[in-house]
Amino acid sequence: MAKSPGRLTIFAGTGDLVPHAIDAALAAGYKVQVMALTPRPDITAVKVIVADVANPLAIIWSLKVFRTSHILMVGAIHLPDKAREGLIRFANGNNPTKSASSAPVGDATLAALGTVLKKMTGADLIGVHELSPDLLAPEGHIAGPDVASDDAVFALQTARAIGRLDIGQAAVVSGRRVIAVEDIGGTDDLIARVGTLRRNGLAGDGAARLTLAKAMKPQQPGFADLPAIGPTTVENCAAAGIATIVVEAGRSLLLMRADLLAAADKHGITITGVVIGDE
Amino acid sequence: MAKSPGRLTIFAGTGDLVPHAIDAALAAGYKVQVMALTPRPDITAVKVIVADVANPLAIIWSLKVFRTSHILMVGAIHLPDKAREGLIRFANGNNPTKSASSAPVGDATLAALGTVLKKMTGADLIGVHELSPDLLAPEGHIAGPDVASDDAVFALQTARAIGRLDIGQAAVVSGRRVIAVEDIGGTDDLIARVGTLRRNGLAGDGAARLTLAKAMKPQQPGFADLPAIGPTTVENCAAAGIATIVVEAGRSLLLMRADLLAAADKHGITITGVVIGDE
Repeated sequence: MAKSPGRLTIFAGTGDLVPHAIDAALAAGYKVQVMALTPRPDITAVKVIVADVANPLAIIWSLKVFRTSHILMVGAIHLPDKAREGLIRFANGNNPTKSASSAPVGDATLAALGTVLKKMTGADLIGVHELSPDLLAPEGHIAGPDVASDDAVFALQTARAIGRLDIGQAAVVSGRRVIAVEDIGGTDDLIARVGTLRRNGLAGDGAARLTLAKAMKPQQPGFADLPAIGPTTVENCAAAGIATIVVEAGRSLLLMRADLLAAADKHGITITGVVIGDE
Repeated sequence: MAKSPGRLTIFAGTGDLVPHAIDAALAAGYKVQVMALTPRPDITAVKVIVADVANPLAIIWSLKVFRTSHILMVGAIHLPDKAREGLIRFANGNNPTKSASSAPVGDATLAALGTVLKKMTGADLIGVHELSPDLLAPEGHIAGPDVASDDAVFALQTARAIGRLDIGQAAVVSGRRVIAVEDIGGTDDLIARVGTLRRNGLAGDGAARLTLAKAMKPQQPGFADLPAIGPTTVENCAAAGIATIVVEAGRSLLLMRADLLAAADKHGITITGVVIGDE
């Protein structure tokens, strides 16, 4: 039997990517422990510990006991402001003079807290795409009708700009007009909102196609969650009247790819992978 | 009797500012004609023409007949994509080779179409704050509890950044965390959304105050609508749990100021005018 690649603690948020990541880690030979940041009764293949973000020291202790060598953060986390304020104080060593503020911060800044974990445990932070490189979106036409979209680059640049401001990872545009952008409510909320705006006659009745784009937050550490789309994203877009989905090639994830492609074909929704410069 | 300052055509969208602008224009001695971009049965003091954006030439003709010397655009407009595409074609002289695209554009770009109106009619474009300088928000504490907000500048910079991307004029933050930003749904929608996010436990339970900021889109022409708040904004913020409103001093409007200040005092909501650099 080959040597184990290490002992992996998975910080698990919501979403379909979590069980996939566990399977990929087990297949790669890792010993796996899950710290659930949200209830995950669906996970039974490995030991699950409920992570209490109000008690970061208990989390560190669990990692020490497990002798964690690698840490993976996967799935969306929904931390309210109070939990964020507590984590910032913890990251500052509970030293109120060290930082001018313990005000809540956005998700990209929060993800940088992973470096505190690394420092306190010695474990390496890895990204889910390192376990499953096949998840990464390729460049070019991926699924659905192969129509060129003039708006793809504009859409992706808008998603990137929103990410740079640590607001969200997604944007919906119509031509050169931004319809709505993702906030802390997440992508599904954004798509539903666009559906409402469209039904109210405010967008999407012209020649331009409604286009959803998702891009990585440029300041986001590589181990943090990459933007992802799955079959549900496609179903939601179909319901909202969004005709095109643009993802950042090599920096976003395609979940349940067979189902994703089937959903895109079924609803006639185009999925394209695009590379834009880092500017 | 003093000489009339001119003949003013008011392009009227939705909102409380429109009748105020008409009153101010009449008080200043203008002859006033209203082109209603949305139904305005409330306007009876002056002649109202229903403006059909699908027929821009008819609008130009009305201005010629009225011998318009000044144009004022006031109130929010909700033009769907099809109308935007038509206006862009019109601005390009219906010449498809002149522009690479007749794709819909955002509101700041649309406002720049005012220069086409100016070119075709010779009229001067003015802003409502030129009729009523008393509408402009001052710098410093304006209403409600006089508490300093560390987040005011961050909030206003976020609103400005969103405006630069022509997404909207408003943002809600908690500390250094962006909760949500205005999209084509408008400010009231944004505030309601924040209320939902807060009730779902995703924001606003910590020490940081939820702060709404509104800032002018930096690329917006001076005659276009400045961001505005009124008593309804305050009532909506109170319902959503937003404790502070930050406006850009000298570049935003306070509507129905007496009612606005009373609402802020009643609900204990702080209103502050802040100046940020144009960077």
